Amino acid sequence: MLPTDTPIRLPIPPLPRGFRMAGVRAGIKRDATREDVSLVASDLPATAAGVYTTNLVYAAPVAYDRALTPGRGFRGIVVNSGNANACTGTRGLDDTRTMAAIAGRALSVAADEVLVLSTGIIGEFLPLAKVSAGIEAAAARLGADDAAAVSAARGMMTTDTRPKLAGSSFTAAGSDYTFFGMAKGAAMIGPKLATMLGVVLVDAAIEPADAQRLLAEAAEETFNCVSVDGHMSTNDTVLLLANGAAGGGTLHGAGLAACGRALLEVCGTLAREMADDGEGATHVMRIAVTGCASRDDARRIARTIADSPLVKTAVHGADPNWGRIVSAAGYAGVCFDPAKITLRLNGTLLFQGGAPVPFDAEAVSASIRDVRETRIDLAVGNGPGAVVFHSSDLTADYVHLNADYHT
Amino acid sequence: MLPTDTPIRLPIPPLPRGFRMAGVRAGIKRDATREDVSLVASDLPATAAGVYTTNLVYAAPVAYDRALTPGRGFRGIVVNSGNANACTGTRGLDDTRTMAAIAGRALSVAADEVLVLSTGIIGEFLPLAKVSAGIEAAAARLGADDAAAVSAARGMMTTDTRPKLAGSSFTAAGSDYTFFGMAKGAAMIGPKLATMLGVVLVDAAIEPADAQRLLAEAAEETFNCVSVDGHMSTNDTVLLLANGAAGGGTLHGAGLAACGRALLEVCGTLAREMADDGEGATHVMRIAVTGCASRDDARRIARTIADSPLVKTAVHGADPNWGRIVSAAGYAGVCFDPAKITLRLNGTLLFQGGAPVPFDAEAVSASIRDVRETRIDLAVGNGPGAVVFHSSDLTADYVHLNADYHT
Repeated sequence: MLPTDTPIRLPIPPLPRGFRMAGVRAGIKRDATREDVSLVASDLPATAAGVYTTNLVYAAPVAYDRALTPGRGFRGIVVNSGNANACTGTRGLDDTRTMAAIAGRALSVAADEVLVLSTGIIGEFLPLAKVSAGIEAAAARLGADDAAAVSAARGMMTTDTRPKLAGSSFTAAGSDYTFFGMAKGAAMIGPKLATMLGVVLVDAAIEPADAQRLLAEAAEETFNCVSVDGHMSTNDTVLLLANGAAGGGTLHGAGLAACGRALLEVCGTLAREMADDGEGATHVMRIAVTGCASRDDARRIARTIADSPLVKTAVHGADPNWGRIVSAAGYAGVCFDPAKITLRLNGTLLFQGGAPVPFDAEAVSASIRDVRETRIDLAVGNGPGAVVFHSSDLTADYVHLNADYHT
Repeated sequence: MLPTDTPIRLPIPPLPRGFRMAGVRAGIKRDATREDVSLVASDLPATAAGVYTTNLVYAAPVAYDRALTPGRGFRGIVVNSGNANACTGTRGLDDTRTMAAIAGRALSVAADEVLVLSTGIIGEFLPLAKVSAGIEAAAARLGADDAAAVSAARGMMTTDTRPKLAGSSFTAAGSDYTFFGMAKGAAMIGPKLATMLGVVLVDAAIEPADAQRLLAEAAEETFNCVSVDGHMSTNDTVLLLANGAAGGGTLHGAGLAACGRALLEVCGTLAREMADDGEGATHVMRIAVTGCASRDDARRIARTIADSPLVKTAVHGADPNWGRIVSAAGYAGVCFDPAKITLRLNGTLLFQGGAPVPFDAEAVSASIRDVRETRIDLAVGNGPGAVVFHSSDLTADYVHLNADYHT
């Protein structure tokens, strides 16, 4: 049975073969009705890959996982929310190792076959007794049904309003494979990566180096093209486990490419969901920048637009204030000729040739107000560099949520 | 007599000799009770210097002034608020030239002896008839008393809640000199410069190249160390006029250095006032970063902290959430060792040696809540690079102001 009060997009994607999971309430979060420990188990030893925050100030579980991935022989992932175990020094690293050891015992595997994810408040030590009890409880409830997936996804949430789940499948050399992904986002979301945790599972067999490359490529186009508030987290992590439970042998060549496409689909869905569920968001902004010299240039412009509080508040106010968009592009640090810009908002041309274009402001405003997604399309020249970036608008609710988070 | 409804810090600084000014209501702003055209006149030909936005998308008056400064022989500055004349193409540049010509006629000087400033909405053409009538009216009211200064400062305001005025004085070779500065800020404020206009006047005689160097140096330490929302404007401009009306000959050597210190004082006051009066602000943040390899590194870290919505909302909520500060420093793109960071908030040590330090959270929270200025002191190492940066907190009022600005 699904937990109540769980707004979620149905259908819930199925788990790949050989994976089980559970999320439980361990009392780490203040709200005791919310899951805060999750456990993912792989029946077979799995290849693991990871991508991590580039913040110099990174949390203990990031240090721990980064040292172990990419690699093979992994049997599980343990997650806690409500406490990030970041800025906690050597004691924090010891606590992460203890979490892995407890989860290993609960799963009857070695400590270093378990990866660790934490998210929540920075700078407080983990309540290990609660975490430990939660891991034991989760291990006793591991399952592969919808309720298991949803409870595990809820166990990694912080201020997310809903679990973020995605699935995809592919076929290679006659075998069918299944991807399952879950993620949390909400705030402290800024490229590179977001304040986000992601777990992606597949029942294919992949070499560690290949898994790492596919995950890095997918993250580059998805999680690294999302921003809620531009604040890069200490804990950003996406882990991929590939356990080979579907059979068919280790993927190479065309099969590996098909796997990469399916992985990109899962990551793309999760990334967009994160922007859509940004703290306090009433709109998700889809910012497409084209015509740049490089993809990096396009992303820099898109991110500058995405992070501008003035653009974000204009979208929130359904205000076709294109001057804020064009001026944000202008300070992105990318060279272009303003006279060659073309800007469309929800499909309507607003700015071209360095000057405003007459448009029906009421109609464009209505097109923003009434639709969850606002499309910003900016062409800055004739180059090949392009990107699609997702972000959320900025609302008074974001301020309320973050002014009152700690106290 | 001072305009009513003018909250302003007294005493109002005196004008330097040989300058007169006025601000009038020309109906450019929707609120017809607010000044929106200002005129500054110099009785003697003045040296002019300017510093400008580095946004690729810059407004017509920026293009106009940048071509004329530094230089000598200037007799006035004309300002309008309510319309930025940005993203207005060749017609916008023609309109700026027309503004200069109208002001020149009103002052009986040549058009190219007048500099132009505009601020307000982007992408709409100037209402030239209103601007013209405003300039005529202002020219008829030029004065050198408090009311003249306040009305002129009000004529450049947009969402500022109060005029920003500053003064200083210095002595060189037996002559006394006076600086007067006025500025507008409020939002679209981000380094380099802010969405800001500034006018600084002095009755000293300075060579154009010296004036430019002094102004650039002062802006570097003041206006370029202020951020409200990190969004760099199309119109940022600070102009310095030095008319020599105090006599004493052209400044060099020690006299010029004294002039630079007095200029720095004026610019520092105006910059801090801008952060303090950031849109919706309930706190001004004074962020001091020390121990970096260079001043640029220090400023990059300070700006990243200053622009983080999570830090801004924490300060608004009087929340000593130092994890947000440390993690913002970590993604500033500057290399440092997190284990060597020392962070103090309003003087209380919160983080040192890579781990949290026990502190009285209630007391620190109270120290934020009850005081307008929040002091963040971050030492990141032993290097010589240091900066003091000012910013404002982020409030629901900022969101309301900017979601509803246009429509």
